[in-house]
Order: sequence, then structure tokens, then C-alpha cells
Amino acid sequence: MILYGWHTVAAALANPRRRIRKLFLSENAAKRLADDHIDTRVTPEIVRPALIDQRLGPDAVHQGLLAEADPLPSPDIEALPKEGIVLVLDQITDPHNVGAIMRSAAAFAVKAIVTTARHSPEATGVLAKSASGALELVPLVMVQNLARALTEMNDQGFLTVGLDSQGSEDLGAAPLRQPLALVLGAEGKGLRQLTRETCCVVARLDMPGEIKSLNVSNAAVLALYIGATRLGLMR
Amino acid sequence: MILYGWHTVAAALANPRRRIRKLFLSENAAKRLADDHIDTRVTPEIVRPALIDQRLGPDAVHQGLLAEADPLPSPDIEALPKEGIVLVLDQITDPHNVGAIMRSAAAFAVKAIVTTARHSPEATGVLAKSASGALELVPLVMVQNLARALTEMNDQGFLTVGLDSQGSEDLGAAPLRQPLALVLGAEGKGLRQLTRETCCVVARLDMPGEIKSLNVSNAAVLALYIGATRLGLMR
Repeated sequence: MILYGWHTVAAALANPRRRIRKLFLSENAAKRLADDHIDTRVTPEIVRPALIDQRLGPDAVHQGLLAEADPLPSPDIEALPKEGIVLVLDQITDPHNVGAIMRSAAAFAVKAIVTTARHSPEATGVLAKSASGALELVPLVMVQNLARALTEMNDQGFLTVGLDSQGSEDLGAAPLRQPLALVLGAEGKGLRQLTRETCCVVARLDMPGEIKSLNVSNAAVLALYIGATRLGLMR
Repeated sequence: MILYGWHTVAAALANPRRRIRKLFLSENAAKRLADDHIDTRVTPEIVRPALIDQRLGPDAVHQGLLAEADPLPSPDIEALPKEGIVLVLDQITDPHNVGAIMRSAAAFAVKAIVTTARHSPEATGVLAKSASGALELVPLVMVQNLARALTEMNDQGFLTVGLDSQGSEDLGAAPLRQPLALVLGAEGKGLRQLTRETCCVVARLDMPGEIKSLNVSNAAVLALYIGATRLGLMR
């Protein structure tokens, strides 16, 4: 996979579990890594920024860093810790949204993200950039069948809470406990029927304004804040 | 300006203050508007979806609706209501982020958004689409000089609170009152020095995880939730 951008590549270099295969740096980026005492681990190829532009397209803000790396291993559902909060993403594919969700997950010390989505190499690069280093901090559990994964989590004692504007209770008032799994559906489509039916609870986010649904990464961070606050996980 | 997508165009058609100049609809979209008893206000041109694709590029999810419309008038700073919450955006330019912020602002019944940013016609289309109809609900106040606007708001009695990871107190614990202005800076750059100095308070969002900063639209929705909850504005 391709990683680019300062935070993303610096976090990957700092993660001993991340295997780096190749590293392309601009002269400035190489200097900045050296100044920050960040070990490049492989011998970098010093290139002109235009060469990285060429590879990533004109919209990618790479800041002179591009790494070719192996994906991190995907842990099993059985290995999820039985405490704290886990996020579950039901067919959320937009890489900007998934990246922003991963960043928020790292900010709220989420234990893992369970997801069905497979991303193309290009999308993975965008996702990693939007995640701003969070890819190294939050384990990503890839599953084929989300309903089966949720059933397993229910059996393991997770309180699985689906978020849906049609939910029967407000997340801020619903009884919550650890381990908590917050389940989010894709923009527009929401939770699939079987996902909804497999959750212990379906809750909504009550808001006072005329629009009743948020961008999915905005809904995720709000659910995380409410969950973490109510479970006493804000430290 | 160009508006496209179901929620965005339907909301514009429902807003009597929005002047629609031209409307292009696919046959399906025209039928859907008729089924929902939405008045098109101008005689629509029925076109093949590919024609709208051609105009917007392949990535725009237009759902068969495109309108050419006038921008809404920008109210003056003096006209801001002296209650509730106003959002202030300091050079936030990414149209996806600004659109998501507008959507969250509409969900939290924000009174207005004050912004310095001017967007290109293409960016305005993306912004309007991401805002999912919120452009019709939240007045957008365009200003040339943000520090001057904030000084005026201070004089009008607003509590202006800048959000910054280096803030001196946690937003969840800082004394808040109405009218409240929450001030957000651009991704990466944060608040400009003069913006920060002009705010009454600079507050941070405390979070328990390893990453301490969020995507700007995620930070905005969290600040809105905390502000609205603490001011008793959640209805």
C-alpha cells in the first residue's frame, strides 16, 4: 500500500509493526525527518517533489513523503478486548470519511474498528492521509459478513448499538455499558436491515435543528464523545 | 452558482429566498419531484443524466438534478441575533469540510456562519452538495477581515471562543454563555495569531486518545454539541 503526507508517513516509520518497503523523500522532507530524529528504517530515495506529484496526482498533499508499505495484519473478532469502545462500519466506503473516522477513533482511544470495506490502493492512500497517522494506532478488523461478526460480538458480551435517525431511543439517554460497539451505516443508505436487526439497540442522535442527519464522520465523533463520556472513559 | 444532488436542489426549490435561474432534471428526478409535490418554480429542461455528468465531471453524485441559482444575500455582522450559537470559520477552504460543517450547523440550529473564504464555482457546488440542503437554512456571513468581525462581535456581547489544541482550558469545563461564537481554524494551520488574540477565550477539546486533533468538521460538531448541551440549547 501507498502512504503519503507528513503525519501518515512519520507515524508509519514510528510503528515497528509496519513493514516499510520503499521510501521516497524530497530533500526538505528528509531534512525534517532528520531534525525530528525519526529513523527512516530503509534507505530513502531522495527525489524531486514533482516525481511524487506525478505518482499521486495533483490533489494529493504529500509534503514530500511517500512510502510503499505492507498493510498491517488484521486481528480476529475473537481477539477484541472486552472493554472500552469498538467502532463498526457497515459498508462505509468514502476514504475521506473512513480516514476522518479513524482519526477520531484514535483521539477517543477506540480499541478497534470492524469494517467490511475493501479499498482500492488509491483509496487506501487517501484514507491513510485523512487518518493522519491513526492507521498505526487503531487495529482494523476486516470481516466478510458483518451480521455474523456482530452476532459473535453479542455472544462475547458486547453491547452493540446501531446509530440510526429512526432509532428508538436517544444515545445520550440509552443505557450503555462496556464493552460497547457503536455501529455506523453509510451516508444516505444507513444501516442495512440485517445489521440493524443484529444490534442489541438502535439509537438516534437527538439534535435541536432542522436537519436530522450528519455527515457520517461527524455522527461517528459525536457518538464516540457521548459513549466515552457516559462510560467514564474521558480519563 | 451551481447546485446539484437531491437534498441540495430540493432544499433550494423549497427556499423562497433562493432565486432559481435554470433547472436541469433527468426524467426520473422530475418524476420524483412531482411525486413529492415539490414545485420546480421554473420550467425544467429534461435531459439525459450523461449531460449532467458531462457538466459536473464523473465524481459528482447529482442524482439527475442540477440548478443554476443566485447566491443568497450575505447578512451583515450587525444583524446577527444576540442569542444561541454562531460558528466562525478562519480560512477553512476545503469544500467537503465546509459543507459538512454547514450540515452540522443546521442540525444544531446555529444562527449563522461567519467566514472569510470565497469559493470557486466548482468548490461552491461541492460545498452545497456536502451541506445537503443546509445552505438554505444557515445564513452565511462573508467578511473581508476576520479580526475586525470578531472585535465587532465582542462589542456586541458575544463570548468568542477560539478552538485550539493548545487552548488554556477544556471547552467542556470553560464558562460559557449566550450569545456564543465558536471559532475554528483551518486543518493543519489552526487559528491565525490575530484571530486567536481577538477571541475572549481559547479552549481545547480534551480527548483520552493518542491523537489530539480532529478533522476540522469533526471538531466543529463536537464543539457544537458541547456548546449546545452546556447552554441548554438541545431543546
